[in-house]
Amino acid sequence: MPEDFPRINPVRLLDDLKTLRSFGATGPGVVRLSLSPVDIEARRWLAGRMTDAGLDAAIDGVGTVFGRSRKRGPALVIGSHTDTQPTGGWLDGALGVIYGLEIARAFGECEATREFAVDVASWIDEEGTFSSFLGSRSFTGEAIDASLHGARNHEGLLLGDALAQAGLANAPRVTLDRMRQRAYLEPHIEQGGRLEASAKSIGVVTTIVGIREFQVRFTGQRNHAGTTPMAIRRDAGAALVAFIARIDDAFDRLADADTVWTVGRIDLDPGSFSVVPGKATLNLQFRDGNAGRLHAMDNALAGLVDEWNAQHAVKAELIACDGAEEPVTMDAGLQRHLAQAAEALAPGQWTHMPSGASHDAQVIGHHIPACMLFVPSIGGVSHDFIEDTAEQHIVLGCEVAAQAAARIAEALSHD
Amino acid sequence: MPEDFPRINPVRLLDDLKTLRSFGATGPGVVRLSLSPVDIEARRWLAGRMTDAGLDAAIDGVGTVFGRSRKRGPALVIGSHTDTQPTGGWLDGALGVIYGLEIARAFGECEATREFAVDVASWIDEEGTFSSFLGSRSFTGEAIDASLHGARNHEGLLLGDALAQAGLANAPRVTLDRMRQRAYLEPHIEQGGRLEASAKSIGVVTTIVGIREFQVRFTGQRNHAGTTPMAIRRDAGAALVAFIARIDDAFDRLADADTVWTVGRIDLDPGSFSVVPGKATLNLQFRDGNAGRLHAMDNALAGLVDEWNAQHAVKAELIACDGAEEPVTMDAGLQRHLAQAAEALAPGQWTHMPSGASHDAQVIGHHIPACMLFVPSIGGVSHDFIEDTAEQHIVLGCEVAAQAAARIAEALSHD
Repeated sequence: MPEDFPRINPVRLLDDLKTLRSFGATGPGVVRLSLSPVDIEARRWLAGRMTDAGLDAAIDGVGTVFGRSRKRGPALVIGSHTDTQPTGGWLDGALGVIYGLEIARAFGECEATREFAVDVASWIDEEGTFSSFLGSRSFTGEAIDASLHGARNHEGLLLGDALAQAGLANAPRVTLDRMRQRAYLEPHIEQGGRLEASAKSIGVVTTIVGIREFQVRFTGQRNHAGTTPMAIRRDAGAALVAFIARIDDAFDRLADADTVWTVGRIDLDPGSFSVVPGKATLNLQFRDGNAGRLHAMDNALAGLVDEWNAQHAVKAELIACDGAEEPVTMDAGLQRHLAQAAEALAPGQWTHMPSGASHDAQVIGHHIPACMLFVPSIGGVSHDFIEDTAEQHIVLGCEVAAQAAARIAEALSHD
Repeated sequence: MPEDFPRINPVRLLDDLKTLRSFGATGPGVVRLSLSPVDIEARRWLAGRMTDAGLDAAIDGVGTVFGRSRKRGPALVIGSHTDTQPTGGWLDGALGVIYGLEIARAFGECEATREFAVDVASWIDEEGTFSSFLGSRSFTGEAIDASLHGARNHEGLLLGDALAQAGLANAPRVTLDRMRQRAYLEPHIEQGGRLEASAKSIGVVTTIVGIREFQVRFTGQRNHAGTTPMAIRRDAGAALVAFIARIDDAFDRLADADTVWTVGRIDLDPGSFSVVPGKATLNLQFRDGNAGRLHAMDNALAGLVDEWNAQHAVKAELIACDGAEEPVTMDAGLQRHLAQAAEALAPGQWTHMPSGASHDAQVIGHHIPACMLFVPSIGGVSHDFIEDTAEQHIVLGCEVAAQAAARIAEALSHD
């Protein structure tokens, strides 16, 4: 255990966050989509700040900014992403990267941590402008060739062309060195309202929930809404509405307080006042931290569809969509270091909680021990220009992350 | 009562229907939108056929083709529309107009009916390409100036410009002469599946149902679908789904077998897998032949919204849309003539029934006694290229209409 802990510089931390915000600033929010000109500008600035901090920094062949410590290691990697959603907030992703930068600086300024290695990363495209988690997938050696050759952004630009335009086509790709990089910490805004609702300042993440996405498509008979008696209709929209009630009943029985499910979209065809819908489609997503419960929900949903089709003339079809993710448990030892630091700096003001959102930590957590720390989101808002976090929470989160990083680095040095 | 009845010529009837079909034929269907070049061509052909039949025919200043009998009157008007839906069938509207033409010819060829006046009309734009019921509204003296100056079709063409392009800008408009035109008959395809389901060949319409159209808009809180626990959500989509169940319960209690209601469209905002909808809108239409029941349904719906808002954080707003129509009862005496003719020619194969669809008869029925006769639609399909009616039903329908017309004309001659 270090005798003292690295002290972060709140002014320097907030200055860097605000400078990063200026790249793509749009009102209170930020539009800084992966590999857009302003994103590339921001990456160059970030690499410069990493270099100033004494890291060997570069933008790699997929766009990730990686600042490697010159210390021997073992290394703790701290990172997140600096690119944003189409209507992004200023802290989603950016917070964790600048925390990493500030912690690397603070480590170098502290006698007890000066020799510990902290590598800092801004993983490209967690948000999926081209291909979700591209940077962390590339780093951990997962297959990305299909993305490189086929993924396009909303404007139709190919990922490969975007990288070439940014001059990155031949840049080397940074890859995980398991002998050196032994642990990963991703600080992030909560993106939900739990911390605020329970008046906590810090969340120690237990698990990143798994996700399922399905469409349920109903096929009935399109008919004139005036001339078709209720008794002989096969209304696909009415079937869809009735089916949602069955989903709610079944999932309610399986759920715990952290289970979530969402019907985010409904399309009735043809979608006019005076036509009984012949087709109807709903988009269903559900998330849970427990793999067994997710599988039980998969089975329940398939069972509901079978049961429905045995009972009704309007037929239902279940379509599993891409992007199913299993839950990823955060490393118990790393969680303990985060909890100790949180209790030391914010006694009683922190809590364990799942992450309902996806993060690069779920990719990296498959390869090395990973952990996450959350700070509160005002009003629980994210993916919106008005996303924000109180300055005192931004500073406290970095202090907790720095102390936890020191505890983790110390522990790694004894392994 | 005429000693014998006019005999229609099935070959001539079907030939004219098939010739009319050729204007705008698209596969088995027809695309002949109001005032389009092919519609104007069809109107010129129709005016020629009326002239051949001995009528004084012209296309009037709004596009209606009106063939006035040279007989003194009182006159029975027989009509419907020859323009179509964007994906129209060959008989929707066309059937009633060509029945009128054939009956006018048959009247002239029959000793007993030779002196009776039958005027024949193809009312412009019942389907609302520019402005619903334009022709019948113009004929009966309802206000159409706003339509003439402001109505546009889907391509943005102004109604006034379309009429000018067709050379009709200065044509006189035909208007109802109450002293002469004493009754209106509109034969039409059923556009539903009731006659077919009950193995009947003829429907005698009792009432044209009234219509209500509403939007119900729900405002909750848009949130991240992963990070927002179920317990603190204000999901506008979930509210909408629950509200539909309440509508169904309330309307079920008020309905009879002919009452219909339809949720034809649902929009969740923003409409993605991973966002809890912050706004949700449904389009609700309901129809009934009983004005009292329609008002009770209006009140029930308003009550459900008030009750909802008293109970829920997601708020509902009820928006009445344009186009509410009160039910229009068909003239009892005219119904009796239709029923007698149906029983004479198709004993036991006819039924009384409401019209769930809208027709020019509901406009004209506010001004002079009106009635409608239905023939079966195969599979109940209409507003679709595959709409069709068996030839034997087309011929039988015209025979019944002709005999009823003779009974009506005879009765009018004694008034």
